[in-house]
Amino acid sequence: MHVGKLLVVASLAMTGSYSVAQSGDATLAPRQVPAKSLPVPTDVSPGMQAIIAAPLRAGWDVLWKTGEEWRAAADAAAATAIATLPAMRERLHVTVKPAVMDGVRVYVVTPDVIPPEHRDKLLIHVHGGCYELSPGEAGTSEAIMMAGLGHYKVISVDYRMPPEAYFPGALDDAMTVYQSVMKANNPKNVGVFGTSAGGALVLEMMLRAKQLGLKMPGAISSGTPMSDVTKTGDSFYTNELVDNVLVSRDGFCDAATVVYAHGHDLKDPLLSPVYGDMHGFPPAILSTGTRDLLLSNTVRVHRKLREAGVEAELEVYEGQSHAQYSRDDRLPETREAFGEITGFFEKHLGH
Amino acid sequence: MHVGKLLVVASLAMTGSYSVAQSGDATLAPRQVPAKSLPVPTDVSPGMQAIIAAPLRAGWDVLWKTGEEWRAAADAAAATAIATLPAMRERLHVTVKPAVMDGVRVYVVTPDVIPPEHRDKLLIHVHGGCYELSPGEAGTSEAIMMAGLGHYKVISVDYRMPPEAYFPGALDDAMTVYQSVMKANNPKNVGVFGTSAGGALVLEMMLRAKQLGLKMPGAISSGTPMSDVTKTGDSFYTNELVDNVLVSRDGFCDAATVVYAHGHDLKDPLLSPVYGDMHGFPPAILSTGTRDLLLSNTVRVHRKLREAGVEAELEVYEGQSHAQYSRDDRLPETREAFGEITGFFEKHLGH
Repeated sequence: MHVGKLLVVASLAMTGSYSVAQSGDATLAPRQVPAKSLPVPTDVSPGMQAIIAAPLRAGWDVLWKTGEEWRAAADAAAATAIATLPAMRERLHVTVKPAVMDGVRVYVVTPDVIPPEHRDKLLIHVHGGCYELSPGEAGTSEAIMMAGLGHYKVISVDYRMPPEAYFPGALDDAMTVYQSVMKANNPKNVGVFGTSAGGALVLEMMLRAKQLGLKMPGAISSGTPMSDVTKTGDSFYTNELVDNVLVSRDGFCDAATVVYAHGHDLKDPLLSPVYGDMHGFPPAILSTGTRDLLLSNTVRVHRKLREAGVEAELEVYEGQSHAQYSRDDRLPETREAFGEITGFFEKHLGH
Repeated sequence: MHVGKLLVVASLAMTGSYSVAQSGDATLAPRQVPAKSLPVPTDVSPGMQAIIAAPLRAGWDVLWKTGEEWRAAADAAAATAIATLPAMRERLHVTVKPAVMDGVRVYVVTPDVIPPEHRDKLLIHVHGGCYELSPGEAGTSEAIMMAGLGHYKVISVDYRMPPEAYFPGALDDAMTVYQSVMKANNPKNVGVFGTSAGGALVLEMMLRAKQLGLKMPGAISSGTPMSDVTKTGDSFYTNELVDNVLVSRDGFCDAATVVYAHGHDLKDPLLSPVYGDMHGFPPAILSTGTRDLLLSNTVRVHRKLREAGVEAELEVYEGQSHAQYSRDDRLPETREAFGEITGFFEKHLGH
């Protein structure tokens, strides 16, 4: 074992011994930061500037309390999202077909062109949306980008959401698809990816697969994962009202997650995977932005993976709030982010 | 060429075509963020919590105007810093000896124990301090940590600073040492590292080496580099008065750099290396923190390196302001950061 690896391991052990937080210590005063005005960054594309300049998400502070209310809100938003998909599928030369795998609804997302070295590979996609949003076809947007920009075939899981099912329903459905795909393919040829709640689900799937003694896939991509839903993580504070997508830990997204959790402990690693044991995870790529409310949630997972000896790459995009790298397939920043994920899968799948 | 690499290259080309910033566009309104209170993170070690909880650096808004004034301030601060070094050298089992290489002052920093696979390797260190601070022995702190925690022999460059020399004096001295070391060693066995102005100097050295047709070293480590001193970069705004070390782009550090620049264009890649052409750079590891005023400066360099096809790793540490990963060798976070850098050098040097 080399010196560098020893140091990281030693660091983990030492961090463990300090695990009792001292936030009650009177000497640890919070920092008072005055009001400020943040100009739109000049070092991103005009399209990304427009996304960054957008006002805070409308309704970010609407906190529905039941699965039924969330589903109504999700269906309304989904209609708008779905209307944009045909043009994107056409632009990216991708076909999407609904199917069912072992009782779970999925979409099979196929690019017109699959290069020879991708033909024995398969990606599983778990969509985001705070475990409540983007039902049905609305959840396929990121899968279409991955298929169209990365030229892989993708199975996108349309997992059950409240009120149809509560925790761990989403994870159960994702695992059903995972087991089916892993049986039918060489596990090394399978990649799993997702963003936000989908990024968390990717990590939760690996934890559950370890519990069940299943094989690991060849690589994973976890984009700005909701890895800690207990409001632990510095950027919940530093990027509050800076991120124009999630806006605040006290906003819609974590309220939705609480409804999904349905009384279950939010610190359970199957809801807050940063608390899980990541030893034995496959190579992982993580993506976030400097204004992301989940910047800390992302970098903390990166640190945990590195401490567990996992090959893990971190990409942080300038000026972006939560998941804005997957907002518009036409932007150079989107192509850059999916280019990194594609390159990572090319490097690791099959090996 | 695989799909992933093609996408990244395409992205670079597209970004280039958007290089005219639209900050004057009236539709791109800045975001107004209210005053806030940032609690000390609970997910870092108690020692790091104390560092994060410290008030803003005393005198952060003192803007000296001449090299003479800066040197007086630097000498006063250096006396305090130097007083802490004997205990650290003893803790880390490191010996430091002043020397001169081709007319340039250096310190030879040698750990008591050098493992066999490190014995033919050599690291060059360029210290930080806004091109004005940490003269003489005060500049050896990071070199001592690298030698003691990573078990490499280190040559730390005590480059001339104002009023002894202005731009490009620091870079000239670093290059003299670089050429001398590269002549006497297999270039693949040489690593170059530094933080802040030192992190920028590492990048400037690679740009200059390319200009001069010199060989590249085996790997570099650029910690939170002052890669853009033109106040471009989103975290100059988002982390202003959040970072308790640099505090603000309008504070002491950039004022010092302006004195070093001595009228030279701040956008010159030898002062703002993010604007340089990074094709052909050696593998690079970059380090920063979520509260770092130079978070954007760091991730932008990471993006540039990736777009240029360079193997580049990014580490972002939770809750840390500028360069706090190298503040105290006794903290687990310091050992973690130097563990990553050591592991990176072990992976790449000699190959």
